[in-house]
Amino acid sequence: MFYIIGLGLCDEKDVTLRGLEAIKNSTRVYLEAYTSILMIQKERLETFYEKPLILADRDMVETQSDDILRDADKEDVSLLVVGDPFGATTHTDIILRARNLGIPTRVIHNASIMNAIGACGLQLYNFGQTVSLVFFTETWKPDSFYDKIKENTDLGMHTLVLLDIKVKEQSEENLARGRKIYEPPRYMSIPLAISQLIETEQSKQTGTLSPDSTLAIALSRVGGGDTQQRIVSGTLTELSKQPPDIFGEPLHSLVIVGKRLHHLEVDYALDFAVNKENWRKVAKEVYGCILDD
Amino acid sequence: MFYIIGLGLCDEKDVTLRGLEAIKNSTRVYLEAYTSILMIQKERLETFYEKPLILADRDMVETQSDDILRDADKEDVSLLVVGDPFGATTHTDIILRARNLGIPTRVIHNASIMNAIGACGLQLYNFGQTVSLVFFTETWKPDSFYDKIKENTDLGMHTLVLLDIKVKEQSEENLARGRKIYEPPRYMSIPLAISQLIETEQSKQTGTLSPDSTLAIALSRVGGGDTQQRIVSGTLTELSKQPPDIFGEPLHSLVIVGKRLHHLEVDYALDFAVNKENWRKVAKEVYGCILDD
Repeated sequence: MFYIIGLGLCDEKDVTLRGLEAIKNSTRVYLEAYTSILMIQKERLETFYEKPLILADRDMVETQSDDILRDADKEDVSLLVVGDPFGATTHTDIILRARNLGIPTRVIHNASIMNAIGACGLQLYNFGQTVSLVFFTETWKPDSFYDKIKENTDLGMHTLVLLDIKVKEQSEENLARGRKIYEPPRYMSIPLAISQLIETEQSKQTGTLSPDSTLAIALSRVGGGDTQQRIVSGTLTELSKQPPDIFGEPLHSLVIVGKRLHHLEVDYALDFAVNKENWRKVAKEVYGCILDD
Repeated sequence: MFYIIGLGLCDEKDVTLRGLEAIKNSTRVYLEAYTSILMIQKERLETFYEKPLILADRDMVETQSDDILRDADKEDVSLLVVGDPFGATTHTDIILRARNLGIPTRVIHNASIMNAIGACGLQLYNFGQTVSLVFFTETWKPDSFYDKIKENTDLGMHTLVLLDIKVKEQSEENLARGRKIYEPPRYMSIPLAISQLIETEQSKQTGTLSPDSTLAIALSRVGGGDTQQRIVSGTLTELSKQPPDIFGEPLHSLVIVGKRLHHLEVDYALDFAVNKENWRKVAKEVYGCILDD
């Protein structure tokens, strides 16, 4: 059996009992290292599982899937994935390949940011499509995310914005010289994400995002408990002016609040607001929420 | 500490290690019985956890939350929820109440249908808002779901349709006589769901749903492994004509496929198609997918 096992969001204790059982019974266990990051190191997982883990980067999962699947018709092999196997990056390719090889497959689900984002208090029902925001460079500012946010906000839906991470990047020099030396990982911060959103709004000028009257909620380390998880709400301007450490450690996500905002959602996120008075004011005056005084 | 713990989708082994630890350390453990159903009985959970479970129905969670929260500032109390605590029914009310009482709270996330629906092979990215479809009666046919499906499909997004369940219903006679006798639970089937969708289309006439050229994917017991999980894809007409047992046991969900359909999504769901040739034909001719011949 080939297992693809979601590890959930934080650490070694977020695996399910079914997932742990499959890991324990597997002859080889791969840990996918590229789509996202757990908040802990590989070694801690190995100690906990009492199993060595084989790191599988993007290349390996995409181009060497037959190596991963080897003998999985005769013994159990597991691929561990942060979040859920059908989260931001799906694993349909390797499942299709297993299917073609006649290898039975089982997916063991877990929480991913796509559902745990509900922790911000907004109804998952009212989220539209999810967008990804990549690091802008001087010459490359892909902005298709903006049109999707516009489609969502025009209908009043909330938007989950996933912020870029860069791992295993090579400098141009190292790349040119063929040296496999990698830069330290980079994670997009909330203020940078907001500045890219505003920059795109300023060039597109559709009024979809307004620095002072669009509400947003920033989240980091969702599911990590009080010591790790941070949720901060406010207007785009308010959030962009916060000191970076208020947002906690990466990974960060940002929710753009849609106009179908319910007063209970306003109340729930009030607790996380940079400026409670202004949070309620904008919810009332811009979003049209009817709130108690 | 007050814990709200997601149990995941299927059975006792879908709890996370963190969740199980919290359950074991709790002096009282409530099991929320209304928002969804696990595929197993309460007694099996009790045996597995070695803990008695207190059933908490909708009334209790909504109106007697202070009973549930009693002493949670001094000891650990857990509320178990099928799926994720922020799934279809959020638990923001009881968390807000805990917050007001100064009781520390921790949410332990898990998979819910809102992210595990990715098992059908469609990208979660491209789902719009989620809708709920309730049982129509002779005189009550609420159709707000239709406008939401239209909003999604107009933009090419997929729609997750959650099908109604009725538990703890009383007959009119038992209700009138004040007898607390409940009808057996009812779960909406895929063919019934489709007939309600078509009925609404026929009355609204916007061309959003077409029996022969709208593709859909029916899912049941997502995450339940090969012995339980069923995924069936086809046009609305094709799905409506299948014998009910092809769809497996409840709970069922239905995905209306949006026009932003990728050829890899078509390939993945081909395996589940009632009529593979027609699945590809509609994907090509109606959805405009470019497929290999």
